Amino acid sequence: MTGPRYTPLAAALPATVPFVGPETQERAMGRPFAARLGANENVFGPSPLAVEAMARAARDVWMYGDPEVHDLRAALAAHHGTTPAHVTVGEGIDGLLGYLVRLLVGPGDAVVTSDGAYPTFNFHVAGHGGVLHRVPYRGDAEDPEALVARAAQVGAKLIYFANPDNPMGSWHDGAAVARMVEAVPEGSLLVLDEAYVDLAPPGTAPGLDPDDPRVIRMRTFSKGYGMAGLRVGYALAAPGLVAAFDKVRNHFGVGRIAQAGALAALADQPHLAQVRDRVAAARAEIARIGAAQGLAALPSATNFVTLDCGGDGAFARAVRDGLAARGVFVRMPFVPPHDRCIRISAGRPEDLAALEAALPGAMAAARG
Amino acid sequence: MTGPRYTPLAAALPATVPFVGPETQERAMGRPFAARLGANENVFGPSPLAVEAMARAARDVWMYGDPEVHDLRAALAAHHGTTPAHVTVGEGIDGLLGYLVRLLVGPGDAVVTSDGAYPTFNFHVAGHGGVLHRVPYRGDAEDPEALVARAAQVGAKLIYFANPDNPMGSWHDGAAVARMVEAVPEGSLLVLDEAYVDLAPPGTAPGLDPDDPRVIRMRTFSKGYGMAGLRVGYALAAPGLVAAFDKVRNHFGVGRIAQAGALAALADQPHLAQVRDRVAAARAEIARIGAAQGLAALPSATNFVTLDCGGDGAFARAVRDGLAARGVFVRMPFVPPHDRCIRISAGRPEDLAALEAALPGAMAAARG
Repeated sequence: MTGPRYTPLAAALPATVPFVGPETQERAMGRPFAARLGANENVFGPSPLAVEAMARAARDVWMYGDPEVHDLRAALAAHHGTTPAHVTVGEGIDGLLGYLVRLLVGPGDAVVTSDGAYPTFNFHVAGHGGVLHRVPYRGDAEDPEALVARAAQVGAKLIYFANPDNPMGSWHDGAAVARMVEAVPEGSLLVLDEAYVDLAPPGTAPGLDPDDPRVIRMRTFSKGYGMAGLRVGYALAAPGLVAAFDKVRNHFGVGRIAQAGALAALADQPHLAQVRDRVAAARAEIARIGAAQGLAALPSATNFVTLDCGGDGAFARAVRDGLAARGVFVRMPFVPPHDRCIRISAGRPEDLAALEAALPGAMAAARG
Repeated sequence: MTGPRYTPLAAALPATVPFVGPETQERAMGRPFAARLGANENVFGPSPLAVEAMARAARDVWMYGDPEVHDLRAALAAHHGTTPAHVTVGEGIDGLLGYLVRLLVGPGDAVVTSDGAYPTFNFHVAGHGGVLHRVPYRGDAEDPEALVARAAQVGAKLIYFANPDNPMGSWHDGAAVARMVEAVPEGSLLVLDEAYVDLAPPGTAPGLDPDDPRVIRMRTFSKGYGMAGLRVGYALAAPGLVAAFDKVRNHFGVGRIAQAGALAALADQPHLAQVRDRVAAARAEIARIGAAQGLAALPSATNFVTLDCGGDGAFARAVRDGLAARGVFVRMPFVPPHDRCIRISAGRPEDLAALEAALPGAMAAARG
């Protein structure tokens, strides 16, 4: 008896996963983190109205969610001034990226991203046999001109561009993004990952023609809306592309509680505004805590701050590990030169107090 | 500006979806169904302890769920007398079937199923370019011997077999399933969909070696546990196959509320036992209501009863549509000769009262 006959592609895929969760580290350490500031979760949490809606929906969870996600798509369309035919909802941006890559990318197809950008996108491209071309950042920001130039050069089907960027927190204004869309080469599709845009300065999101076939925008309820564990993302694109998702998506994948929670969260824009204020205050506090230890905060349009540890990757990894040993979960960029930094999510005062208490020891340990 | 460059496979896929939800019909009718008995949802609902756990988790939903699904996998392993390395959890059986097909099936690869069995499995096979070979039922039951024989003949990578069966409600005992596993041809993998097995007579689930490389079992919290809208399914298989899911799955796809709800539901086996009793009573009541109109109930090991309308497909469709027009949502098998039947999910007394009130009119209308 032999095992299953995998496809050649599946057989060749590595067993690695994009991220190790903090729970895995906690199990290894035998205790929970005192502050959970590594996954860019929004510790300020969802709207209380969304929490109520989810609890109510839990009693009705014997019913499948609406596979057309009608009410949420209608609300999102109204929110964005477009139509439901321009909106598809999926199991987080991760899920939507998987469907999108599957629709466009087959073995050998070219895809362009920035070197050090979102690993889960790369996971999906590899998973479908695509060939990833990595463009360097320009300093600490993704480089729109270089991305589209490389796409033209390699005939890329997809160009991944996050604005604001993760893991560096940098951003381009909407006008620059609109120029990038104009420069997308024929035959390429721009994946504009706007996961963090709800937390960015006004004007970061470009005004785009919703029927523009050159771009698909990804949004999420995980960051600004504080519901990472609910798994609701959505994409805004021309109706033809939106309809194509129906060919491959898990039609009942966005469940009843997820739809109810997202709908209620979207309706509570005052809560989102409050989150924005609290995130801004937390960013300033993280910068202050870092500065006290000689670490420079990079400007951020997100709910995290990237701190330059002033050394190399090994040094920053030591700082990160020292924080973990002291009960503070943070992450860091994967590739040089960005791996000189650690990345700290906005936290409540008590979370940042834990950070402030842990950082000097972590720095001292890293230094020697 | 042209649109995205889809893969040839994606471009060729039809825009059809496996199921239209009752909400779509309700929107078209302009009013909700009085009784929702078409999707084999479990109207008796989840354990109250699971509802509490989901409501609690809603407050913590700012955190991603554990991507390793550690606690739930450990509990499932204990429940089934195996190890967490034998368990993978996904976004419902639908999600797991999608991953499994993707891992094994490429363009042209042969897959065997029963003609009239689960359309979502067929959706995934088509979505990955597989070639589906359909074996007739033997009477109203899937035919294990014919399925494995056809698999040997066509060199199938996958054999889909649901026990109990949907949409007919029939079943084979565990000994027959174990014999089928022994007969799986070299190079084929049996997908044993046990979505309804929690509601079946004792002995329906075979005792299998968890390391057997010839079979993967699919289970769900959607049916017996009453949480279809939560989207939690799991698969039991040899560790190598379980590990392969990590190469392609949406690692954060099973969220925080989903994990908490499933864990609490699994722990409340007395609730499941109560559901079993209520489902059995409802099946008897549906049979009685059908018999009063001259419709014969097929034996069922599930939470639904398939009623033989005594005519052809057109007649049964008319009965189904007549029930819908009278506020009762039911579904029916897709292919002859099974499409002589309608399929009615177990309901509460008030749901079945609505069915009893609507059926005579629906029958009269169908008779013309």
